[in-house]
Amino acid sequence: MAADGAYAGLGEFDLIERFFAPLATAPGSLALTDDAAVLKPSAGHEFVLTKDMLAADVHFFANDPADLVARKALRVNLSDLAAKGARPLGYLLGLGLGGEMAGSGAAQWLTGFAAGLAADQAEFAFPLLGGDTIRSGERMVLSITALGEVPEGRAVRRNGATAGDLVYVSGTIGDSALGLALRLEPELARKLGLSEPHTEFLLSRYLLPQPRVALASAVLSRSSASLDISDGLCADAGHVARHSGVDLVLEADTLPLSDAARAALAAQPDLITRVLTGGDDYELFVCVPPAQGQAFEADAATAGVPVTCIGRVKSSAADKPTVRLTRGGMPFTLAGQGGFRHF
Amino acid sequence: MAADGAYAGLGEFDLIERFFAPLATAPGSLALTDDAAVLKPSAGHEFVLTKDMLAADVHFFANDPADLVARKALRVNLSDLAAKGARPLGYLLGLGLGGEMAGSGAAQWLTGFAAGLAADQAEFAFPLLGGDTIRSGERMVLSITALGEVPEGRAVRRNGATAGDLVYVSGTIGDSALGLALRLEPELARKLGLSEPHTEFLLSRYLLPQPRVALASAVLSRSSASLDISDGLCADAGHVARHSGVDLVLEADTLPLSDAARAALAAQPDLITRVLTGGDDYELFVCVPPAQGQAFEADAATAGVPVTCIGRVKSSAADKPTVRLTRGGMPFTLAGQGGFRHF
Repeated sequence: MAADGAYAGLGEFDLIERFFAPLATAPGSLALTDDAAVLKPSAGHEFVLTKDMLAADVHFFANDPADLVARKALRVNLSDLAAKGARPLGYLLGLGLGGEMAGSGAAQWLTGFAAGLAADQAEFAFPLLGGDTIRSGERMVLSITALGEVPEGRAVRRNGATAGDLVYVSGTIGDSALGLALRLEPELARKLGLSEPHTEFLLSRYLLPQPRVALASAVLSRSSASLDISDGLCADAGHVARHSGVDLVLEADTLPLSDAARAALAAQPDLITRVLTGGDDYELFVCVPPAQGQAFEADAATAGVPVTCIGRVKSSAADKPTVRLTRGGMPFTLAGQGGFRHF
Repeated sequence: MAADGAYAGLGEFDLIERFFAPLATAPGSLALTDDAAVLKPSAGHEFVLTKDMLAADVHFFANDPADLVARKALRVNLSDLAAKGARPLGYLLGLGLGGEMAGSGAAQWLTGFAAGLAADQAEFAFPLLGGDTIRSGERMVLSITALGEVPEGRAVRRNGATAGDLVYVSGTIGDSALGLALRLEPELARKLGLSEPHTEFLLSRYLLPQPRVALASAVLSRSSASLDISDGLCADAGHVARHSGVDLVLEADTLPLSDAARAALAAQPDLITRVLTGGDDYELFVCVPPAQGQAFEADAATAGVPVTCIGRVKSSAADKPTVRLTRGGMPFTLAGQGGFRHF
C-alpha cells in the first residue's frame, strides 16, 4: 500500500499503520508493507474483479458519516460480486482525500472511515488487500477494486438470458431512489405525509445498501443471467435485454415494494417513474430458467433473501431487444417517457 | 465496465463502445459487456495486484497531452509490477472526468487518452480488463489497478535485503525531479544554462516514465528485495531498510546521472537534494546477493536495461534501520537535512 503527502500531521506511515494495516488481515495483503498484494484463486476457481469509483457529492454526500461512506463503497462492490455468483475475497482501496481533509478533522474522519471498513469486512469476510492514498484536491474520491472467485467458467453474465426464463429481483425496488429524493427535498416527506419510520427507512436504504452476498450461491447454481440494479431497474433490465438479445416483459403490479415506498406512491403515484428508473437499489436482477424457478426460490429462502418474480424473458422481434412494462397485463407507459422504454 | 452520466453528448455506451471496448482485447475483459472481469493466473503462478491513483495537478498537469496522461498512469503501475518481478497481465481503469470534460472538448480528449492507452497496451502487452467511468467534479482523477503474475511464492518483496547484498538502481536517477522543477519554474533552464536538448530530456522524463518491465525477469531470478523509486531514492531506500531491518550505505559518487542532470548539478550543486529525494523516477531499486551480482548485471545487459551498483546492505545497529549517504567514502549530509536521513 502506498500513500503520499501528510494529512493534518499524519504522515504516510501513520496513515497506513494507524488506520489501514489493522484491516489487512489476509496473508495476500503482505500486511500492506509492500506496494502490491499477492494471491491466487482456490483450486478450480478463477477471479472475478470489479471496480467502482465514488465521488463526494456525486455518489455520496460529503457530510455523510464517515463509517457509512466506507460501508457503502464496499457494499456497491460486494453487490457486483454477488450478481456474478462470486464469493468475496477482498478489496484494494483507492482513497483520494479532499482538501477539507487537510484540517484537523482528518484523524477523526479516518477513524470513522476505518471503523466502517472494519465492520463490513467482518460482516462479509472481505479483507483489505492493498491500495493507495492520495490528495485528490477539492473533493474526496474513492475507488474500490473488489476480488471474488467463482468455479472456473461459471461467472454469471448479463448475456445468458433465454426466452422463457423467469425474471426475479431480490428485496424491494425504489427505496433508495425515494430516499435520495427525500434527502434532496427536505419538505417532501411532509408533502407525502410519510411517517417518521417510513422516512427513516427510505433514507437508510439510500445511505447503506444491503448487498445480497447471501444470494450469490443461488445465482451461481440456478440463473442464466444476472446483474445488480445500480442504474435503475429499467436501465439494468435494458443491459440484460441488449447483451442477451432478448425482450423482457416486466409486470409493474408484481414489483416488490416496501411499505414505505407504497405509502409514498399512494400519495404521489407518478413517483413510480423514480422507483423504476432511480437506481442505487443494489438488489439483484436474476434471470432463471423455468425448470430452476422453484429451486431458486427455495435456495433464496434458505439464504434468507426475499425474491420476487416480476416478469418473463421473450424472444426479441426484429433484432431490437426491448424492455416492455405492463400493468395488469396491459402496456404501461412511464410518465414523461412518451412510450415504452427502448434501450 | 460501467460509466455513469453523459459527457458532451456522449452517453454511457458511446463512452465504453467508442473509446474503451477496442482496448479490451483479452478474453477476461468479457469485452466490457459486464460489470466484471474474469481471469486466473497461469498454472503454478499467482497474481500480483497493485493500485495507484493519480489526480490532475497533483500527479500530472491537467493540461498535459491526454495520451501522455494515459501512458503515465499505466507506466507507474507497470513499474510497480516490474519491481515485484511480475509479468504484466492487464489493468482495470477508473476514470473520474473533471468538470472541464463536460465541454465539447471531451470527445477530443478521450480520443487522445484512448490512443495513449492503446500505444502502451501494445508496447507492454497489457490490455484493458474493465473499470468504471464517473464524473469526479472539479478535477480528473485516475485509478489504475494493475494485474501481473509471478511463479507462486516468488514475488519480490521489500523485506528481503540481507547484510552484504549489493544495491543496484536501473537507468538514471533524478531526471524526473529536475524535469518537474523546470516545469514549475520556466526561468530555471536559462538560470542553469541548460541546452535545449538537456531541458527537453529532463521534461520528458517527468512526463513519460520508462517502466523497467524488461528487467522484471532478472529481478525475479536474482534479487533479495526490490521496489520502484517513486517517492525519491532516499525515501524508497528507507522503505527497504525499515522493512528488511538493515542499514543501507549509498555512495553518492556512483549515482547514475544523465548528461542533462550532470549539467544541472554542475551549475547548481545543491540540486543534488532534489535528485536524491525528488521522486517520480520509476527506476528500480534492487538488492542482490553478492553471489548473484554478475548474473544480475548480465541479465540486465541482455534485457537492455542499464543498471549501476550504488551501495551495500549492512547489518543494522541497535535495531534502527538507517540509510547512510557517503561521498568518496565519507559521510555526506544533504543540504537542509541537518544530518543523515533516518527513516
